[in-house]
Amino acid sequence: MDSLTLLEQLVRIPSDKNAQNTTGRMEYEVVSFLRDYFKKNVPKLIVEEQKIEEGRANLLVHDNSPISLLFLCHIDTVEEGKSWTASPSGELKGTRFYGRGSLDMKCGAVAVVRAVEQAVKLGKPGVGALFYCDEEYDSLGIKKFVQEYGGKLNPKLIICMEPTGGKLRRGCRGIVELRYVLSGKTGHAARPSSGISAFKGLNQSVNALQDVLKDYSDPYLGHPTLNIATVRCGALQYHRPDGFTVFGSAGNIIPDYCEVILEVRTVPGLDGTKIKEIFQNGLRGTGVIVESVETKMELGNFVTPAEQLKLVEDIFYEMVGGDMYQDIELGGYTDAQVLAELWKTPVAIWGAKGENQHGADEYVDLPSFEKLEKSLEKVVEKWA
Amino acid sequence: MDSLTLLEQLVRIPSDKNAQNTTGRMEYEVVSFLRDYFKKNVPKLIVEEQKIEEGRANLLVHDNSPISLLFLCHIDTVEEGKSWTASPSGELKGTRFYGRGSLDMKCGAVAVVRAVEQAVKLGKPGVGALFYCDEEYDSLGIKKFVQEYGGKLNPKLIICMEPTGGKLRRGCRGIVELRYVLSGKTGHAARPSSGISAFKGLNQSVNALQDVLKDYSDPYLGHPTLNIATVRCGALQYHRPDGFTVFGSAGNIIPDYCEVILEVRTVPGLDGTKIKEIFQNGLRGTGVIVESVETKMELGNFVTPAEQLKLVEDIFYEMVGGDMYQDIELGGYTDAQVLAELWKTPVAIWGAKGENQHGADEYVDLPSFEKLEKSLEKVVEKWA
Repeated sequence: MDSLTLLEQLVRIPSDKNAQNTTGRMEYEVVSFLRDYFKKNVPKLIVEEQKIEEGRANLLVHDNSPISLLFLCHIDTVEEGKSWTASPSGELKGTRFYGRGSLDMKCGAVAVVRAVEQAVKLGKPGVGALFYCDEEYDSLGIKKFVQEYGGKLNPKLIICMEPTGGKLRRGCRGIVELRYVLSGKTGHAARPSSGISAFKGLNQSVNALQDVLKDYSDPYLGHPTLNIATVRCGALQYHRPDGFTVFGSAGNIIPDYCEVILEVRTVPGLDGTKIKEIFQNGLRGTGVIVESVETKMELGNFVTPAEQLKLVEDIFYEMVGGDMYQDIELGGYTDAQVLAELWKTPVAIWGAKGENQHGADEYVDLPSFEKLEKSLEKVVEKWA
Repeated sequence: MDSLTLLEQLVRIPSDKNAQNTTGRMEYEVVSFLRDYFKKNVPKLIVEEQKIEEGRANLLVHDNSPISLLFLCHIDTVEEGKSWTASPSGELKGTRFYGRGSLDMKCGAVAVVRAVEQAVKLGKPGVGALFYCDEEYDSLGIKKFVQEYGGKLNPKLIICMEPTGGKLRRGCRGIVELRYVLSGKTGHAARPSSGISAFKGLNQSVNALQDVLKDYSDPYLGHPTLNIATVRCGALQYHRPDGFTVFGSAGNIIPDYCEVILEVRTVPGLDGTKIKEIFQNGLRGTGVIVESVETKMELGNFVTPAEQLKLVEDIFYEMVGGDMYQDIELGGYTDAQVLAELWKTPVAIWGAKGENQHGADEYVDLPSFEKLEKSLEKVVEKWA
């Protein structure tokens, strides 16, 4: 089966969280498809299905020798969404193949299938692949994998197939999302000492975060960034059952309530604990107290030093050329970070060119897809 | 009629914005009462009724010579409100007289009646009094007065009867209340350059205001103060017809909308124009734009140099003693500012001791009320 046909078949199978499949739930039909494909076409490989929950699974493919090179590929997609002009189930137009998941990351799955086939063909031992579920939602797939296989495997290189616009990435910033409720005391604006402004607390803590975050920097990941996503601040009257907060409208009342959702993209040295410490220190002297703080999300960061990716860089230079590393701001968090942190394994992220990942008219650029395939085959060839 | 009886009669007449009176609307029954009182008891005085609107008026009392000393007294009160333990219509308990308006400022009205009576008695020309309406609401009374009499009068001293805890005041800070709607552009938090954070604009402008406001100071009024009363910031989804604003809840979206109500208590050199300029400059470099700015309130500030109030200070020292000037943060804006600015006339503010102005169980301390009366009579005696 040629690669485009394989990609067409994978894209045709819905694998988002609402997907209705005959063999199981969500992305499971892709798992079934790949399992059957390997059993039929590469019977030498061992295909382990790891059950996540009823009707959902990861698929680990290997040759029964310890995995030294691991390809990483999630098989779920985001939902189809609206406003497509091409078919979300797959449509070829010129040198672009459109469809939900075409770029993120079923083209990567195809390239990985080719790579492990190449390893078998060349008799290279230790080349494995993890096709895992639930990357786009709750990371159940990678968590379950780590739980069972974390202590058993220790590869020397991981290549993760997240879209990178045909370039390389070698790390990602982490994400810390916090929801604070700050409380002060109402008072009259004419007399600041009669109250404690919850906004003043927020302002000082945001200033503190901005100042301190400047001191963190990574040559590859750059500086951490701060986003204050929502703020609701005022003299609290009551919380409505529908979730809205009612404030007084007078300009002369010192606000006693401030609710904020903030997100920091972290670099090495920064984590949720550190960010909370900086925020708390920022409140000093204001009298404002943290009524509650909820960690809505905390994901780590990682950087693989370039010198640990010499093989991948050499092949990129030979097969692709041009700017090697993608702008760090163009890529988000990747589940590969969990494995990088666990095993201290170098990780390269390498996906094809394309556009509209997660949006309407997602497509992969076929020449870039082919280059990616050939590049992975080359990595396998050179793998020792 | 003795002063306590006069005070009882004035307090018995409701004069808030909902007052139901037989002679007119709101505070008009107090106007009628005072007009009739003067006509009957001090027929030498001229009593001019200045119509504000149907059933509402100011009352200007003078002896037909140019007014050189003007007593200033508003005759409306705030509404009765709840939680009274004493009668809001007037109740004597020991040395306290309770009732809505007892302190703010019907006790002042009585003291002014006594003062002009004293002037007539002593044959002192040029002592006048303005009893005006709508101080607690929209300042219609003082505005109308200025419109008609602003160019005709030019007193040498104004004494305003706002409550001051038995001490003196010689100025007030101004109030500038602004409502801003700031707009930026949504984007993804991983890539700050993909959006323009409306919160970042607010944060910078607030920092700029705090910095610049420190540079303003008046020996009497102190520093200006800033209150950020309410903030609603986020990735705007829509405005609900009931006034609530719906934001996205994701932490990774850069907020494009920020609505803020802020209030500055100003000192000389600062006004609404200047504050808007500082705020606007604070936005520089953020890309955030001011979608709209609404001046919800703008009232000026004033300070009378102490040396222009030597007579009042001397009498205070003789009759009251102790700390002469009230803590500036304890007093708010006063309509006397309009006249101070217009005529450049020295203004002393002098009210009796008491508590719960605008709240339940408002009362005036009778010994302090008596001292105030005697003090004003003394001012009249010494007035040249």
